[in-house]
Formats: sequence, structure tokens, C-alpha cells
Amino acid sequence: MGRLQGIICLLSILVLINDATCSRNDEQRLRFDKNTGQFRILQVADMHYANGNKTPCEDVLPEQFPFCSDLNTTLFIERMIHAEKPDLIVFTGDNIYGPDTADPVASMNAAFAPAVSSNIPWAAVLGNHDQESTLSRQDVMKHIVGMKHTLSRLNPFGVDVIDGFGNYNLQVQGTEGSDSVSVLNLYFLDSGDYSTVSSIPGYGWIKPSQQFWFQETSMKLQKNSKAPALAYFHIPLPEYSSFDVSNFTGVKQEGIGSASVNSGFFTTLVEAGDVKAVFTGHDHINDFCGELNGISLCYGGGFGYHAYGKAGWSRRARVVVAALENKLNGSWGTVESIKTYKRVDDEDLTVIDNQVLWIKTP
Amino acid sequence: MGRLQGIICLLSILVLINDATCSRNDEQRLRFDKNTGQFRILQVADMHYANGNKTPCEDVLPEQFPFCSDLNTTLFIERMIHAEKPDLIVFTGDNIYGPDTADPVASMNAAFAPAVSSNIPWAAVLGNHDQESTLSRQDVMKHIVGMKHTLSRLNPFGVDVIDGFGNYNLQVQGTEGSDSVSVLNLYFLDSGDYSTVSSIPGYGWIKPSQQFWFQETSMKLQKNSKAPALAYFHIPLPEYSSFDVSNFTGVKQEGIGSASVNSGFFTTLVEAGDVKAVFTGHDHINDFCGELNGISLCYGGGFGYHAYGKAGWSRRARVVVAALENKLNGSWGTVESIKTYKRVDDEDLTVIDNQVLWIKTP
Repeated sequence: MGRLQGIICLLSILVLINDATCSRNDEQRLRFDKNTGQFRILQVADMHYANGNKTPCEDVLPEQFPFCSDLNTTLFIERMIHAEKPDLIVFTGDNIYGPDTADPVASMNAAFAPAVSSNIPWAAVLGNHDQESTLSRQDVMKHIVGMKHTLSRLNPFGVDVIDGFGNYNLQVQGTEGSDSVSVLNLYFLDSGDYSTVSSIPGYGWIKPSQQFWFQETSMKLQKNSKAPALAYFHIPLPEYSSFDVSNFTGVKQEGIGSASVNSGFFTTLVEAGDVKAVFTGHDHINDFCGELNGISLCYGGGFGYHAYGKAGWSRRARVVVAALENKLNGSWGTVESIKTYKRVDDEDLTVIDNQVLWIKTP
Repeated sequence: MGRLQGIICLLSILVLINDATCSRNDEQRLRFDKNTGQFRILQVADMHYANGNKTPCEDVLPEQFPFCSDLNTTLFIERMIHAEKPDLIVFTGDNIYGPDTADPVASMNAAFAPAVSSNIPWAAVLGNHDQESTLSRQDVMKHIVGMKHTLSRLNPFGVDVIDGFGNYNLQVQGTEGSDSVSVLNLYFLDSGDYSTVSSIPGYGWIKPSQQFWFQETSMKLQKNSKAPALAYFHIPLPEYSSFDVSNFTGVKQEGIGSASVNSGFFTTLVEAGDVKAVFTGHDHINDFCGELNGISLCYGGGFGYHAYGKAGWSRRARVVVAALENKLNGSWGTVESIKTYKRVDDEDLTVIDNQVLWIKTP
């Protein structure tokens, strides 16, 4: 890290912005592609990885079962990376399935191996199952943060009090040679595991400390630019229940597994104004995107073969493509559109459910 | 303030706890009564004060109308103070009605005059109408904070970023001579006025910054003692819609005027665990208390005569009585019950709707 960059990083820390470049090499700085003007994100939701070839698949067709294991999950990631050549891979939790994991470190190493060996930057958040083995949530996240090519962080710099592990943000800069202002912002949050409040049953939620950090960070980022943003975490917000076939793209085949209470993060997102789409996992056989108050609420769709699913309904992954404006003089402008589609794990990795999530208004 | 107290105050500020005693005289320290073991709070909701005898009443019977003005509001407070002799008076917003106020300072001075002249400590929060004259919310709250005998604060010490004005907490100590640990905690919050987000219509809400302050403060207070707490603010939470005649005490004669979004404060309250009851105003002809997840959600009931109401349905005020345990040796223990009732503005200030909000479990 150069001296100037060091000073910028120190200043970033002082203003509570977790600049992804601060302890990273230049090669890991996130940038839009100079040829296509695109930044492509592959979301991998709910791998539920356990012990590799010893771990059987769940909810596959009878003829698939005898030859199906965690290695099918690995193969699916490898094929997705080859097909998409994403600029970033995001794992949205339940990356490993704690209860069936003999060694959580070995499981994580195997689960993330295709990302690591691809040399593509990757980021992860925690689900509700990642800590259900011998490592705490903190230790699971610590292991992830120490892995190769990851931009994951344990928590933001300069923030003393924050709930959970794996709350951080990343900034995506324009194409090579453009100035260093972020043109796309990414937020990653720990949506918890289970309620620890006896009178509240069910799953965890995003707490005031995290929302306060998000709000402060968003406000500071928006002082510099009006870049759109995306948010990734595991457990869907209660507002995912707002949709049905009349107003979403994709399918809803099970109930919304949000917390049983509303912790207000959707309101906080709407008020902040920069986040245009939220991507979660958790509900493996829901894969829709619906729009509410200008924010698309999307599922990744179940990816992992050791996760529950629906036999005959292919495992799948979501891709997001942010595209820069192609200016008349041939240069690239700011982000003009954010689109998404999914690919299902069939022979052709068939693309389905193309949709536009956001278009810049003049 | 003594030197030791000064040091304690400085320490309180450093740990973000707004100790009510820090810039107050000992006479204004809140304490339980040594004879009764009680601490009694009078809530005055929605005075809607304007220009005294020049301001007519709303929604009173035709025979009341010719002789009815803001002075009826003043008289009602004076009678309530005389009848109840409360240890604290809490004004839960819409203290003045901005649009009809010729001079907001004069209106506030007149509205709070009975509290000031009673020599009883009082606290106030803002509603959605207080700033609808020539003073901003900040300036309205600044004026209140400067008034005599008030324990109101502009905002907590040591907190750099917090939304709104009039977020603070007060600690009520045991009877005279007991140690200085708080046995009852009171939180006051600014629930805002109107949404400033174009896609969200309606009223304001309690923001992440306020919830984070509340959560931090609650956690620190609970390190010292397991004292129960009460929260006062203006706009009811969306969870007030959870009740009907089958599970509340009082009446519901209009819709719940909460924000159109859920900002999660109820979840935050449940998680914190110390707040046993919430008291709001805003909806003048609702006056119920209902319990959800161990927290009573209560309305004060409309108090002011220049506020909308219901002709023939008396203006009213809520009283809360917290009582210490009477130990076998004659000394007072910690708080063992929190009860409430209302008085209506008839000849006898008739007591109605007695109910128990919280009982200490052994």
C-alpha cells in the first residue's frame, strides 16, 4: 500500500467508511470492465456444504441420488464461474451446513475452493447454519476473512459497537483509468441466526447498531456520489411477503422465512435511498424478485445440493449485471442500468427470468 | 453540583448515559416517595395549545362551546395536578398546535404554565404539530429545555449523531436516603413529524440512530440494575394495531395513526427487555392499553380542548403509579408493580380503567 493510499485509508477509517482497498492489493480493487462497461456479480445462496463426496444430496430425483453429493455443488459453481466470468462472487450464507459438518474449516475450504481457485474476488456473509458446528459465528467469519481472494470483512473499521459478524461494504470503481470515486456500492450484513429473545420465536434480524452503521455509511458515500447500491444478506426481510405472482418475477413455493418481527431495515433502506436491490437466500425454493418502494427484493434461489430443495426443480444461481452508460465520445459514464437473471443447473445452464431492476433516470 | 457528582456526571457522559442529575439541583432528582413508596407520573397528551382564551374548543357539546377555550385545558391540568400530586408530569407532544399559534413561545409558556407553577418536575417530547408555527423542531425543544422545573433535554450527552430533538432518559432513584442506583428508568424519544421520503406517505418514525442510542443506554443501565423502564413518545408504533376489544382496556374509536412503515422500534424494545410499557398520544379518541410480547402499549387519551375529540366523550389523562416493594423490616425494596388508570375531566375527575401493567416476578 502506498503512502498516499495509507493516508486515504486512515481518513476513510476516521469517517467510518470501510474502503475495500485499504488492506488489499490493487489487483483486488473492484472495477467495471473497460471493454464491456459491466460489473457482473454471481450470487451463490445456501450451499449447505458439509463433507464433500461423503455428503449426500437432498431433494433430487431418485435417479440422481446415487451419484449426487456436495461435489455437485462444487461442479455447479465451477460451471457458473466458467459461463459467467463474474467480477465478484457473493455467498449469501448457509455456506456450510453446521450440523452435518465434521470439520467446519475443511467444509469452508472445500465450499469456497472454486471461488479461491478462480482468482476472482469474492465476498461472503453468514446464514443461520454456518455456526452450527464447532466454530462460533465470529470464528467462522474470521476464517472466511483470512481466505485467499476474499474481500469479506469481520466488521467495519472504526465502529466500536455492531451486532453480528460480517457487516461491511465494498466500493466498485469505474473502468481502469477512471477516477477513484465509487460508481456502485455493495453492502453486506449479518442478518443473524435465531432470535435470542424468549418472547420472539424464529429467526434473527438486522439490529439497530447495524442499521445505524449502514445509514451513516450510506450518507457518507452519497456525499461523494449518487452511486446506486446493492445489499446482500441471508434472511429475507418481512417485506418479502408483499409479493405474489401478480407482482414478482420467479416463483414462490414456500413461506417467507423472515424473522417473526420487523426490525425496520426495509424502512431504513428506503430512507437511505441508494440501495436499489436486496439479495438474500434462506428460502431455497423461492427465487423471485419483486419491487416495493423502489427497491427490488430478490432471492438468489437455492444453489446447494445438500440443502433442501424440490426434486426436479433445478438448483440455480442469480447473476446481477450493472452497466455503465456508453457515452457519445466512447467513454463510460456512471451506472445506467442494473439487470438480473438466473441460470439453472441443467446441461446448458439455461438463463431464465431476465429482468431490469433499476434504470438511471436522467 | 459537588466535585464527586461532577466526576460521576463526566463518567456518565463518557458511557453515554444521560444522568438526569448532571446539571440539575438535588431538589429535581427524581425519587420515590418515602411515605407511600410510590412514584406517580401524570401523562398529558395532545394539549394542542394555541392562544389561550382566544382559541376555541373543538368537538365539545353545543352547550359547552361558547365558554370553552385553551383555558379549559389549563384548568384540567391544574385540577389533575391537585388531585394526583404527581412526582413527574410528562407531556407527550402536540403540546402546542402550530398552525393556530400566533407566538409559539407564548403558547408554550401558557401550555406548560401549570406544570411550571406546581414546582413539580416535568418532561416533554415533541409531536407532529409543535413545529408548525415559526419555530423549528430544534428551537421548540430548545425553548422547552430552558423552562423552569423541566427535566427535558435537547438530546443525550455524548452522542454525536441522533435523529430528532428531545431524545433523553431519566433515572428515578429509590426513596430518600437509599443508594443512588436507579430503580425506574424513563426514556423519552422524538417520534418525528412527517415522512420526508417521497415513496413513504404519512407520519415520521423512530430512526436507527435513536434506537441505537436507546439500546446502548438500556444495556448500560441494565448492567447496574434490573430496574423496569417506561418509554414516552408521541406517535404510536405500528404494533398498536395488534389489539381489539378482546385484548385491551379502554377504547379504540379511530384508526392507529402510526407511520405507514415499521421502523422496528417495538422489536428493539422487546429485545432490550427493560421497557414494560410505552405511552403515546397522537390519536385523541383512542385511550387503550394492550399488551404484546410483555410490553404494554398505551395511549394517554386526548387531553386538550383545542384538539379534535368527540363531543360528549370527556377529555382525559393517564396516570402511572410505580410502587416499591414494602419489605418485612419496613424498608422499601425495588419496584414491584406498575399500574395505571385514567381520569376523565368531569366534576369528580372520575377514575376509570384501572389496570396492572407489570408485576415483578420473584
